[in-house]
Amino acid sequence: MSYLKDNFLLTTKTAEKLYFNYAKDMPIFDYHCHLPETQLLENAEFNDIFEIWLKGDHYKWRLMRNYGIDEEYITGDKSNKEKFLTYCKVLGTAFGNPLYHWSQVELKEFFNCEIEINQENANLIWDWCNDYIKLNHITPRSLIEKSNVTHIFTTNEIFDDLTTFEKLAKTDYKFKVIPAFRADKIMNVEAKGYKGFVEKLSSLTHPVIDMDSLEKAIEIRLNEFIKVGTTAADVALERVCPIADREQAEKVFVKAINGEQVSLAESEIFKGYFTYFLFKLYAKYDIATELHVGAMRNNNTKMLNKLGLDTGYDSISDANSIYNMSRLFDRLDGENSLPKTIVFNLNPKMNTEIMTLIGSFQSSEARGKLQYGPAWWFLDNKVGMEKHLEDLTATGHLGVFVGMLTDSRSLLSYPRHHYFRRILCSYLGGMMEKGEMTQDIEFVGKVVKDICYNNAINYLKMN
Amino acid sequence: MSYLKDNFLLTTKTAEKLYFNYAKDMPIFDYHCHLPETQLLENAEFNDIFEIWLKGDHYKWRLMRNYGIDEEYITGDKSNKEKFLTYCKVLGTAFGNPLYHWSQVELKEFFNCEIEINQENANLIWDWCNDYIKLNHITPRSLIEKSNVTHIFTTNEIFDDLTTFEKLAKTDYKFKVIPAFRADKIMNVEAKGYKGFVEKLSSLTHPVIDMDSLEKAIEIRLNEFIKVGTTAADVALERVCPIADREQAEKVFVKAINGEQVSLAESEIFKGYFTYFLFKLYAKYDIATELHVGAMRNNNTKMLNKLGLDTGYDSISDANSIYNMSRLFDRLDGENSLPKTIVFNLNPKMNTEIMTLIGSFQSSEARGKLQYGPAWWFLDNKVGMEKHLEDLTATGHLGVFVGMLTDSRSLLSYPRHHYFRRILCSYLGGMMEKGEMTQDIEFVGKVVKDICYNNAINYLKMN
Amino acid sequence: MSYLKDNFLLTTKTAEKLYFNYAKDMPIFDYHCHLPETQLLENAEFNDIFEIWLKGDHYKWRLMRNYGIDEEYITGDKSNKEKFLTYCKVLGTAFGNPLYHWSQVELKEFFNCEIEINQENANLIWDWCNDYIKLNHITPRSLIEKSNVTHIFTTNEIFDDLTTFEKLAKTDYKFKVIPAFRADKIMNVEAKGYKGFVEKLSSLTHPVIDMDSLEKAIEIRLNEFIKVGTTAADVALERVCPIADREQAEKVFVKAINGEQVSLAESEIFKGYFTYFLFKLYAKYDIATELHVGAMRNNNTKMLNKLGLDTGYDSISDANSIYNMSRLFDRLDGENSLPKTIVFNLNPKMNTEIMTLIGSFQSSEARGKLQYGPAWWFLDNKVGMEKHLEDLTATGHLGVFVGMLTDSRSLLSYPRHHYFRRILCSYLGGMMEKGEMTQDIEFVGKVVKDICYNNAINYLKMN
Repeated sequence: MSYLKDNFLLTTKTAEKLYFNYAKDMPIFDYHCHLPETQLLENAEFNDIFEIWLKGDHYKWRLMRNYGIDEEYITGDKSNKEKFLTYCKVLGTAFGNPLYHWSQVELKEFFNCEIEINQENANLIWDWCNDYIKLNHITPRSLIEKSNVTHIFTTNEIFDDLTTFEKLAKTDYKFKVIPAFRADKIMNVEAKGYKGFVEKLSSLTHPVIDMDSLEKAIEIRLNEFIKVGTTAADVALERVCPIADREQAEKVFVKAINGEQVSLAESEIFKGYFTYFLFKLYAKYDIATELHVGAMRNNNTKMLNKLGLDTGYDSISDANSIYNMSRLFDRLDGENSLPKTIVFNLNPKMNTEIMTLIGSFQSSEARGKLQYGPAWWFLDNKVGMEKHLEDLTATGHLGVFVGMLTDSRSLLSYPRHHYFRRILCSYLGGMMEKGEMTQDIEFVGKVVKDICYNNAINYLKMN
Repeated sequence: MSYLKDNFLLTTKTAEKLYFNYAKDMPIFDYHCHLPETQLLENAEFNDIFEIWLKGDHYKWRLMRNYGIDEEYITGDKSNKEKFLTYCKVLGTAFGNPLYHWSQVELKEFFNCEIEINQENANLIWDWCNDYIKLNHITPRSLIEKSNVTHIFTTNEIFDDLTTFEKLAKTDYKFKVIPAFRADKIMNVEAKGYKGFVEKLSSLTHPVIDMDSLEKAIEIRLNEFIKVGTTAADVALERVCPIADREQAEKVFVKAINGEQVSLAESEIFKGYFTYFLFKLYAKYDIATELHVGAMRNNNTKMLNKLGLDTGYDSISDANSIYNMSRLFDRLDGENSLPKTIVFNLNPKMNTEIMTLIGSFQSSEARGKLQYGPAWWFLDNKVGMEKHLEDLTATGHLGVFVGMLTDSRSLLSYPRHHYFRRILCSYLGGMMEKGEMTQDIEFVGKVVKDICYNNAINYLKMN
Repeated sequence: MSYLKDNFLLTTKTAEKLYFNYAKDMPIFDYHCHLPETQLLENAEFNDIFEIWLKGDHYKWRLMRNYGIDEEYITGDKSNKEKFLTYCKVLGTAFGNPLYHWSQVELKEFFNCEIEINQENANLIWDWCNDYIKLNHITPRSLIEKSNVTHIFTTNEIFDDLTTFEKLAKTDYKFKVIPAFRADKIMNVEAKGYKGFVEKLSSLTHPVIDMDSLEKAIEIRLNEFIKVGTTAADVALERVCPIADREQAEKVFVKAINGEQVSLAESEIFKGYFTYFLFKLYAKYDIATELHVGAMRNNNTKMLNKLGLDTGYDSISDANSIYNMSRLFDRLDGENSLPKTIVFNLNPKMNTEIMTLIGSFQSSEARGKLQYGPAWWFLDNKVGMEKHLEDLTATGHLGVFVGMLTDSRSLLSYPRHHYFRRILCSYLGGMMEKGEMTQDIEFVGKVVKDICYNNAINYLKMN
């Protein structure tokens, strides 16, 4: 039997009451993730625990690499079982790492398996889970419905085919799947394959040859997304660039679609203008903008060439957005074109800078119009969440917080919502027991429910 | 009845002993605030709780904005009562925010009101407090005397009229009011209205037309301040600028007083020299210098134009001062012209950089000659204070710390000294109970008293 | 009797079990310190506690300066006893400072003295310890053997005489003394005396006149070090500089050995190339590289001129290495020339940036090939260590961590290893008691032993 108890992470009796009476049964709205919509529609049965648990999960890969495991056992040619056994061995001593908790919780929640994960038990777990999978015909749909999820926002490129979403809407699934709109591939003007991405966009709209045709094409696509339910957009930048001149940005764009190499400085000019354009567009259609900053991507060229993007070689950037973010929000606000925005920041040292900045651009258009997003990616762990809550409550208003998401490619990631909820309840329960806030648990419980679900539903207009 | 108990924030029995036996009855020396001296002299009775509590307090305004309240209910045309009720509603769910605590404490301390603040109770509180105000003829003086304050340092511009301070000195008030000297309006050469500020200075001294006449005028005014008791000066900068050449600074200055637009680079040249000049001047007269760094001001232009400065649209800056601060202090120290200095830093990620830097410039001229100032503004909360104490004790010497101030425009802000004292006592009491420091409570109590009051009194020569 | 109890810093029963049953008796491997090997060989008896405790320890000096003690009592002409008494007075109220703990622990461990350190007891302690020293003939060797140390890596310049290490190898000391290889004096091309350092290197090898002869000379010296057992090298930089062109670096080098002044920009060119060269060299010989970043040195010119280097006038730098470090590691990794590396970072706000970066360059060449080094120098305290453990476990793998070192010039610093071990055991014990990890104490104890000693022994090939 593993160390997991029912009161896992619940540090006080009041925390337990808050979690079990208010948080536990609230449904889940995952307003930002990377689940492939086609997998959800196809809904194929899995063959073994490796396929569900380890395949494609670069969080787990990183942990194995940090331990010193050979790539053969991570993304290489070893068998599913060998990789699984290796992961269990590594995890056994990864005390304090979020995967140490998540993995154990996932086995319990999805495979009814309470065996402690370590080298010794690895074979036993392999057999148990695979038996369970076969017996229960585990599919993507069953995993998500078991998690009590009502809405999923996938992240889709501007030129992605949307018919899958139409088909999903016609199923009897107990959850809705809606794409968030992302123009990043059109923004990253310096990237390999850029020309091809613009051609894809052209083929769906009209010849995209200058800024005018580009902007119109994007607006056309956004309207297509809105038809399948989109209310959110996604923008990811290492840092916010200074707002640049439209004409200068156009020059960079034309260079890029002619297949010329674009310099870093040029790409920042394009991004500086394009970010501004996107925010204005999103404001026009009341699309909530999820802005992600602070990732330094693809540090390891050798492995990028070998494995591709998003395989566990990114890290936390030092690039600071705060001045440019201030200027961007100020300009947009002055033009009455600042959309609802959730800022996700990957560098925890910048928490309070961004939190106090967004406090300068609120308005009555929405409860908590500008949001500081939850602890995310490298911060999606106990320390990161606690710091997030401490910083958020110290400089903002907890009651309007839109709460947790997964940002995950994994179908097993929904217990992370409960991981967050337990930490939230412990944070509030602790303050209650220390006499630092109201003792009215009903009142607090209502706020807990809002943060777990209702705030996000209202903010993203899913009601 | 609210959640506040006598042992609020006192986490151990030893913490309670330290607070009640040593900290609680120490008087208060508020060595940096923004109270208007004229309000203190006029001493007019208040009409309602809004006037005392919400009017002019941009901390509270920000919280309401973060929630999504319309400006009409914050600084707009709604009635005092409507604004008050709205604030109570917002505060009710702002768990963890310092205002959640401060507001509740203020009602208790100043209006004998222990009703929990939330939407439901708002009307009741409105009536209770207003009755109390009328019955007790609450005035600025009565509020301050109730708080056991002995000294207040207001913050005054170099050209402010000092006669109010002379008049205050002749009252039978139980507290002294003394201005800290601030030349910021003369330093911010790029600001609107700069020419007018220099003209004001001229009118009080002599025609200020170049660096020579400027420096002399400032010294004259400083001497006037010293006559009314001044022992401290205030300098606020987003970041410390590199020390610049006097001649180059003069060129910028002449440009500015001729009404020409000064660039950002030029303003940094002027500030770089001028900061150096001020520190040298303050050293000459043994004026303790309170250096504030780390605020990014006036992010929201629309609201700046509507409401003016200091209305809740500032945030924490990323601009780093550490290298320039090192060069400034080194130059001054080499010239035996480094004054006693308290560095207030608004960005908590820079705590230890600055703490270790000032440890490189201490001397026996004063106990703790260079001080790292207390958690301030956006950091003036439980998390900020605890981090401050942890960082300060890890890299400096707690026993010589000059302790808390309010930095406030609010007459109700003095309980924040006790907020700090409770956290200080919990910090020490916790270490005592964990066996991490001496068990001699008398000895520790003496240090607590020093930090609460005596160190500041000695440091700022009020004895 | 002082406040120190057997369970000092051990916050739970499980922490006590982990410490006493697994950590306490593990030997010590100090894989980075600044002990002078000649002092170890000479092994002269000490005359008084001052000589062992205060002489040469700039940590203690800083604390006295922060309090406001005159330099006369720190490094000046006052007697040993007067200085000692002054330090005891200052320490008495330095609650929370690591020296407050370390000093008390050192008296207990090395002088069997449990008197609480403060002004009142200072004379008593002076007499006690001096009696003890005379009675027990305390020498460097006896202090180290008492501490159960098996290996010490000193830090030696490239041109240091290595015969002392040969002689030490022939003694019957119970510990090995091995130099870590350091080329910093050859790297810091802008420093006073640079020409002389290169001449020293020439005299030991061949005329060093260009990049070719320089690189060969360094490789020759590294081989000499390897003969006396060296398996680690040391590189210290305020920040990692961009990799520069070899030819350009050579120009700077030639300028410097011709005695010309080298600009800051030029020195960064040289360092940028030279760092890359050193890492490649260390990879070739499988030398573990200890990279230290983040110190801003010699802030106080007046005291530098008076007391020299390393006398307590350094501080934490803001200079950020993360982008250049990414590029350096990527280039080396691409050339299969990235050595085992331990990154020591002095600025805690950069912890997670570096931790996530090194996770992008792991390989199966070693368990935890790239390490994030322990809390160090200004961070070598309870808060710093706890934050290090939290950040490390959240983003890396605790089980492979190579653990603690002293980085010290003091023979009394070995209890700091136990200071760390107690904090480690409390960290793990706390998680166990809270149900956040396995309850198998034997299993956890094995990991504790690895972190205390075995991991470092394996990583640095001392087995």
